[in-house]
Amino acid sequence: MTETTEGHAAHGYTPEKANYLRRLKLIEGQTRGIARMVEEDKYCIDILTQISAIQSALKAVSLGLLEDHLDHCVAQAAARGGEEAEQKLDEAMAAIRRMTK
Amino acid sequence: MTETTEGHAAHGYTPEKANYLRRLKLIEGQTRGIARMVEEDKYCIDILTQISAIQSALKAVSLGLLEDHLDHCVAQAAARGGEEAEQKLDEAMAAIRRMTK
Amino acid sequence: MTETTEGHAAHGYTPEKANYLRRLKLIEGQTRGIARMVEEDKYCIDILTQISAIQSALKAVSLGLLEDHLDHCVAQAAARGGEEAEQKLDEAMAAIRRMTK
Amino acid sequence: MTETTEGHAAHGYTPEKANYLRRLKLIEGQTRGIARMVEEDKYCIDILTQISAIQSALKAVSLGLLEDHLDHCVAQAAARGGEEAEQKLDEAMAAIRRMTK
Repeated sequence: MTETTEGHAAHGYTPEKANYLRRLKLIEGQTRGIARMVEEDKYCIDILTQISAIQSALKAVSLGLLEDHLDHCVAQAAARGGEEAEQKLDEAMAAIRRMTK
Repeated sequence: MTETTEGHAAHGYTPEKANYLRRLKLIEGQTRGIARMVEEDKYCIDILTQISAIQSALKAVSLGLLEDHLDHCVAQAAARGGEEAEQKLDEAMAAIRRMTK
Repeated sequence: MTETTEGHAAHGYTPEKANYLRRLKLIEGQTRGIARMVEEDKYCIDILTQISAIQSALKAVSLGLLEDHLDHCVAQAAARGGEEAEQKLDEAMAAIRRMTK
Repeated sequence: MTETTEGHAAHGYTPEKANYLRRLKLIEGQTRGIARMVEEDKYCIDILTQISAIQSALKAVSLGLLEDHLDHCVAQAAARGGEEAEQKLDEAMAAIRRMTK
């Protein structure tokens, strides 16, 4: 992770930022679509199918972000070693634990 | 499931419709929040934490909808028996399989 | 569910009992295999792959048992209605919640 | 990972080997217990509860092994850098993907 003068950071996901934004917009639209289905009294099973599709899309985004993070931020911290490496690994493990819940 | 004259249906979730809509609006807002975090180059782990929160919220909505569906639509079909009962149970199982993916 | 004179019960899974027993024996063997891998200092990633395989096999058994249970025990209780139906549905939902954890 | 003269390897999990073996023995016993429950026609929901308990125990073992692996094998490869680092990270990500299925 490199801090820029603007206080912004270049993260593992930065090269894929436009791709993630596009996928998150789609997910936001799908979520709005589910609210509409409930509003219009659609059949429960069809709503559940849509929610499962969103869950898969969110999982794919999470796994992508995690991979970018491990490949860059965590790998660099591990290369430097010391306390920062340990902290980055703990943090990543905590995220993985939340993802497997 | 009872079809009304308007072609709308009263589903298991109908009495809780306002509650579900409120929760889905929150989830939509959280999804928009994640896109903003990516836009603003926020730290990957913080984005992952937010995605996990959305996934938990979506799971809770799914389980609620499934429970309403089993308690009403599936239970009524089971009471009537026959092919419809079988079809409703198959459909519910398929939804449960998608939810455990 | 029909209680027999021996106090045994015919469950939804009864017709598939031999099939489930065979699969559970395989899973037990796979679990023993993992202990052996740890004992013999096998590579962590290979152990993780084996554990994921067991988890998939257990999930398939769970989903099969749940389906048998919904198709028989829950459907019959729903047909009879009343408090028993409600209790069976609550119980099934609690199991589904545990399965989606 | 350090290969010893016997061809055995010291892995991230090596210091906790006895602990993992004990937990895996328990899981093996629980799996055998489930086969017995099916054999004795126990109530489906009770079997599902036991399977969920095993799934949690297996997940805890997986997460522990993954953490040990990231902290040792992956961190060391990342410190050395190059192709091996990349390969270890890819391998770990593939394991994480299987764990979130």
